[in-house]
Amino acid sequence: MATINENFLKLKAGYLFPEITRRIRAYKDKNPDAKIISLGIGDVTQPLPPAVISAMKKAVDDQAKEETLHGYGPEQGYDFLINAIIENDYKTRGVDLQSDEIFISDGSKCDTGNIQEIFGQNNVIAITDPSYPVYVDSNVMAGRTGPANKAGQYAKIVYMPCTAENNFIPDLPTDNVDLIYLCFPNNPTGAVVTKEILTDWVNFARDNKSIILFDAAYEAFITDASLPHSIYEIDVAKEVAIEFRSFSKTAGFTGVRCAFTVVPKQLKAFTKDGRAIEVNTLWHRRHCTKFNGASYISQAGAAAIYTPEGKKQTKKIIDIYLSNAKLIRQSLTKLGYQAYGGQNAPYIWLKTPDGQSSWQFFDILLQKANVVSTPGSGFGPSGEGYLRLSAFAKPADVKEAMQRIAKSV
Amino acid sequence: MATINENFLKLKAGYLFPEITRRIRAYKDKNPDAKIISLGIGDVTQPLPPAVISAMKKAVDDQAKEETLHGYGPEQGYDFLINAIIENDYKTRGVDLQSDEIFISDGSKCDTGNIQEIFGQNNVIAITDPSYPVYVDSNVMAGRTGPANKAGQYAKIVYMPCTAENNFIPDLPTDNVDLIYLCFPNNPTGAVVTKEILTDWVNFARDNKSIILFDAAYEAFITDASLPHSIYEIDVAKEVAIEFRSFSKTAGFTGVRCAFTVVPKQLKAFTKDGRAIEVNTLWHRRHCTKFNGASYISQAGAAAIYTPEGKKQTKKIIDIYLSNAKLIRQSLTKLGYQAYGGQNAPYIWLKTPDGQSSWQFFDILLQKANVVSTPGSGFGPSGEGYLRLSAFAKPADVKEAMQRIAKSV
Repeated sequence: MATINENFLKLKAGYLFPEITRRIRAYKDKNPDAKIISLGIGDVTQPLPPAVISAMKKAVDDQAKEETLHGYGPEQGYDFLINAIIENDYKTRGVDLQSDEIFISDGSKCDTGNIQEIFGQNNVIAITDPSYPVYVDSNVMAGRTGPANKAGQYAKIVYMPCTAENNFIPDLPTDNVDLIYLCFPNNPTGAVVTKEILTDWVNFARDNKSIILFDAAYEAFITDASLPHSIYEIDVAKEVAIEFRSFSKTAGFTGVRCAFTVVPKQLKAFTKDGRAIEVNTLWHRRHCTKFNGASYISQAGAAAIYTPEGKKQTKKIIDIYLSNAKLIRQSLTKLGYQAYGGQNAPYIWLKTPDGQSSWQFFDILLQKANVVSTPGSGFGPSGEGYLRLSAFAKPADVKEAMQRIAKSV
Repeated sequence: MATINENFLKLKAGYLFPEITRRIRAYKDKNPDAKIISLGIGDVTQPLPPAVISAMKKAVDDQAKEETLHGYGPEQGYDFLINAIIENDYKTRGVDLQSDEIFISDGSKCDTGNIQEIFGQNNVIAITDPSYPVYVDSNVMAGRTGPANKAGQYAKIVYMPCTAENNFIPDLPTDNVDLIYLCFPNNPTGAVVTKEILTDWVNFARDNKSIILFDAAYEAFITDASLPHSIYEIDVAKEVAIEFRSFSKTAGFTGVRCAFTVVPKQLKAFTKDGRAIEVNTLWHRRHCTKFNGASYISQAGAAAIYTPEGKKQTKKIIDIYLSNAKLIRQSLTKLGYQAYGGQNAPYIWLKTPDGQSSWQFFDILLQKANVVSTPGSGFGPSGEGYLRLSAFAKPADVKEAMQRIAKSV
């Protein structure tokens, strides 16, 4: 008798975005003329940089000719992309990486979801609250948690609350934790981390033989020159951290699919009897066994981001989103709201007024301003009383959304 | 202390293809002028169909304009592709599928590797010997096996030998098995299965509440009209089978990445206490949590395979590979070798002469004819004494390879 993985039954119905869609549809059914502006899901709206477009077209052309056809590529990714990453994202910031420490993939969702597979069942997982749901759900599916309580928190996970009180930076754990998910600039709060704070985390991980799973998908939005873009800017972080990067938000790759993960050779995890094992070898084996390389066309496009034109064009796009973020934050602050993030990140984390719940204020924005947001409670209990506003909409829409909120809410 | 998934340590080191690469390199170092022809790895050599190329170019163009930009797509895939699949691959063969029974992905390697995640730890796995290594390795990593013996077979897996004696069609298991991996047309043996035999398997699975994981990645190579392309051509198979399909070999997508998996709503697996659960729901949850959709460009290209021009062009490519296969089989047979497969499949399964081991005859072909093959033993112990020859090389290379073997081996 084929039996199911019963851990899947522990998962709370994945209801955040479907529920948002349901409420929008219900509102539209009653108000068919409403022009709804979405500051909800974090999807891009700016077209891809011209340099990326021409590189992808050339790559498509390559597939039309026998001499330039690219079949199976190296599972880890093409050197032309890996080398561009090493030179531009890391060497420029004083970080030396070898090419076999970088693993190109089709997206950070896959990477952050799959990474837990190479670790043992009994690792204690520490996750910020609120957080990107994939960190939690992938561990629930793998059986590293107990059931969820009413607040939606799973037994055995160590949740690290991030609230206005701690500036949305989690305190160092007092519990014993083994795998620590950190994301800076943060989704959903837009919070960033200084070198000093990140150094504390690296030291904590070293002292406890823990591993930090560092999601840097939004590093391109950092404007403050003093902030680290990579965890490896912290000395000895290579001994304790895996880093995830994505081209999704950097250069509009949400529909094109390309990302990468850095697993330094110095990073070790342990057998139950204390033998140190290279994590890079484990991830390499996982990657080559269950993945067959990212699309050649997507990788060719990603490499073009690192050309002189690509860099200029990409910066222009990032600047558009950052000026959206600034407008959202400033407008809401002027209206008397408490708004966080949005300065080195494409997300604004808005405190709901008058103690309203996330969903209550979501409904008000939808009904009074026809603006869609994402309820903070969908990212974890500490997100209750907040909304996430995304700066990825079109500038004209962001402007209009702010005017509507000023007028009607 | 972060601990590793110790199941990874059970994996036999020295994967097949790296060892082949090593031997080729060693030979080339000593014989730098040797012109090596590879009939080894199953990678395509024909450029992509023109209809696919233009569809992908149009899709790239879409990404250059705000109005046509495709960001995050549906995780399950775009309807334009799903509907084309349903209409062309299934309805034409009398199989009705709903759109939410199809899951577009970036490759069958991922799908066949990941599918086991939704099933319980204690399922007994049945795998043909020889087989595509991913079926075995993904279950080893997940902890469903014991350690490997000297022959490379893992404890707890039920291996189903496929040899010349049973025409490379496994016998129905006498053990109690829960998840059964079948692949027809077969990689590596090139064997095919009739409707009658497949019906026996479907009935076996029904009687035992087992699930068949049916890999149909090579169905496009079937020439015999009486053979089933889909397991769902067998009545009630929807109750017992998941089917995997790929565009990799059909239309040269090995570097472009697009495939799909069919999980019918009728298919149920069970909780330990016997409650029936829809497998579709579980896979949907897994797919949406750990995957973010295949590239829009790849999906647009895949949909073009189903246009009238796309179909014609794709058939032309398949015919080239099939005539390679025919040439290989006929040439080797004429030389007195025992050659199997290659009639409804792109692989020829060659019996080594004089009781030589797979690696021995691999070395002879490499050294005497400068032809690369794949040692059958790399696919499992029952593959010992065989070589896999791939028909995916260029026709001129296949011809030359056969001439060299005739002359020098």
